Amino acid sequence: MTDQQPGRHMAAEIDQQPGIFAALVDRRAEIAEVARAIRDRGPRFVLLAARGSSDHAALYAKYLTEVLLQLPAGLVSPSTTTLYGAQPDLTDVLVVSVSQSGGSPDLLEVTESARARGALTVAVTNTPDSPLNGAAELSVDVGAGVEHAVAATKTYSATLLALYLLVDAVRGGDGRHARDLGELARSTLDNSADAVAEAVRRYRFVDRVLTTARGYSLPSALESALKLAETSYLAARAYSGADLLHGPVAAVDAETAVLAVTSTGKGGEALHDVLDAVHGRGADVLAVGSAAAKVSAALRIPVAETAEEVAPVLEILPVQRLAHGLALARGGDPDSPRGLNKVTRTR
Amino acid sequence: MTDQQPGRHMAAEIDQQPGIFAALVDRRAEIAEVARAIRDRGPRFVLLAARGSSDHAALYAKYLTEVLLQLPAGLVSPSTTTLYGAQPDLTDVLVVSVSQSGGSPDLLEVTESARARGALTVAVTNTPDSPLNGAAELSVDVGAGVEHAVAATKTYSATLLALYLLVDAVRGGDGRHARDLGELARSTLDNSADAVAEAVRRYRFVDRVLTTARGYSLPSALESALKLAETSYLAARAYSGADLLHGPVAAVDAETAVLAVTSTGKGGEALHDVLDAVHGRGADVLAVGSAAAKVSAALRIPVAETAEEVAPVLEILPVQRLAHGLALARGGDPDSPRGLNKVTRTR
Repeated sequence: MTDQQPGRHMAAEIDQQPGIFAALVDRRAEIAEVARAIRDRGPRFVLLAARGSSDHAALYAKYLTEVLLQLPAGLVSPSTTTLYGAQPDLTDVLVVSVSQSGGSPDLLEVTESARARGALTVAVTNTPDSPLNGAAELSVDVGAGVEHAVAATKTYSATLLALYLLVDAVRGGDGRHARDLGELARSTLDNSADAVAEAVRRYRFVDRVLTTARGYSLPSALESALKLAETSYLAARAYSGADLLHGPVAAVDAETAVLAVTSTGKGGEALHDVLDAVHGRGADVLAVGSAAAKVSAALRIPVAETAEEVAPVLEILPVQRLAHGLALARGGDPDSPRGLNKVTRTR
Repeated sequence: MTDQQPGRHMAAEIDQQPGIFAALVDRRAEIAEVARAIRDRGPRFVLLAARGSSDHAALYAKYLTEVLLQLPAGLVSPSTTTLYGAQPDLTDVLVVSVSQSGGSPDLLEVTESARARGALTVAVTNTPDSPLNGAAELSVDVGAGVEHAVAATKTYSATLLALYLLVDAVRGGDGRHARDLGELARSTLDNSADAVAEAVRRYRFVDRVLTTARGYSLPSALESALKLAETSYLAARAYSGADLLHGPVAAVDAETAVLAVTSTGKGGEALHDVLDAVHGRGADVLAVGSAAAKVSAALRIPVAETAEEVAPVLEILPVQRLAHGLALARGGDPDSPRGLNKVTRTR
């Protein structure tokens, strides 16, 4: 019965992304309203709070905030609030809480506490009636629709795009770099299918995977490692290319597959030294991204070219397909990995 | 010839830590001078910049800043400056750059750029005449002496202690929780030796290692994974206990060793749920810390009890010994892991 086919939800949700992106770009005006309220308050510092995949989306938003808004930003360690009761003065601070479910108790507590201490709070969720939306002053709905697979795919990429549209609107942009992302997502999925199938064959028996990137693509490397770990149970580790050279490169050898996310722009260029180092250690390199063709690799998965600042929205798509394919090939069910639930309740 | 004994530098440097801690505590007045200058400027936000092991020390300082100083804080992504030329207004911002060598070009650029944009800049290094010290307005010398082994041990722990003394002095503390750390480091090294030797035997053939902790001990879990990866070439991954439950726990199985850092206090208490989850998946748990005796584990490595906020200074000591012992048992030389240099030049 197709109904019980392992991974059918994840496969369907991966395929929905082009349409979700197009619909989200069409809702730009609604997101621009939230952006206007942020501009009016003129925050001086931005804090981002999230867990799991959403934490990688938050890191993407941190880069956008620093580079496009020219504001200092940081990722919240929820435990300083939930375990240690920190109560900093958050006047002039924007706190953005990112969670597909909007149901994580720690983020709820962080958001309530931040609002009580003067922060402007914004919830970015895929569940508009969630407790987190109720706690925050402003909300952005990422509009990805219900996600059935436990492994986040469409909610992750839609969150990236929603955060981009938000930050771009705060700086007074017109969303131009996002405009065609629906079509580009479609062509990326279509044009990468053969390379992904080959990667599934090649990495069927891999155990050690290291993912790496620099700049805007770093969240893609982190999310790639998480997706491979949670669906295919690989020992996948992620490092910024710079941090990799500060130690972990010693553990890279000919039994290591290195998934390098490299898109056209400064982040991809800065990765060349890193790839030289891992090649020198005999690693098998899988390059993913719009600049994959420019690097020496055992296998390349192409991604449509975009402005570098929106590349992460597309880069993850073929990796989601790879995680799905590898999980099936290894006998797993990526829709419900062992030991995971859709909403994780941590404090 | 003893001169060429693998790992002799690392072993000696691990053993120097009790004396280094005692000497650093004795230099508290000097660090309090820097703290006074910070208090006079009254920063509203704190940014921390670092790479590699120092990045874990920076995360520790982020917790201290949020909890003890009640100030919002963030870790810098150097690439937003070095690759994308971000130029945020840093008035009222304290930027602390942490680097044992003080020679990394990206941190130098971040520090120079931050100072030019209004930040109060502080360099925390083990090399008082480094370029980073020259670039920053204020400096703290961690005073660990020359480190010959490539894997950072004494410079890491001394940096933690220097950051603690600095933050404690900024809040007007008298350093009381740090006072006995020299002696406690000595007793921790002595009292953990047997358990470490047993752990070396037990994990001689392990490949998959996952490290975890919550709260203040999270930097210890991150540093433990890095130390094991760079000296013993293990596929060691680190996760906050909360993030672990959001996905990566799916990859935990009976072939996974979980190194859990758990010290007396709220962070250790919050780890209980996490340990239940990994036990339920059949993992082999190695508990390290002053609360190790309180959790179910295959093996426990004790650490002297302290105030939770200084526990990370001690927790890492037996793990350094474990990394050293495992590297030797596996035929490596922890003094000069393959592919690494002491100063890593990244941009």
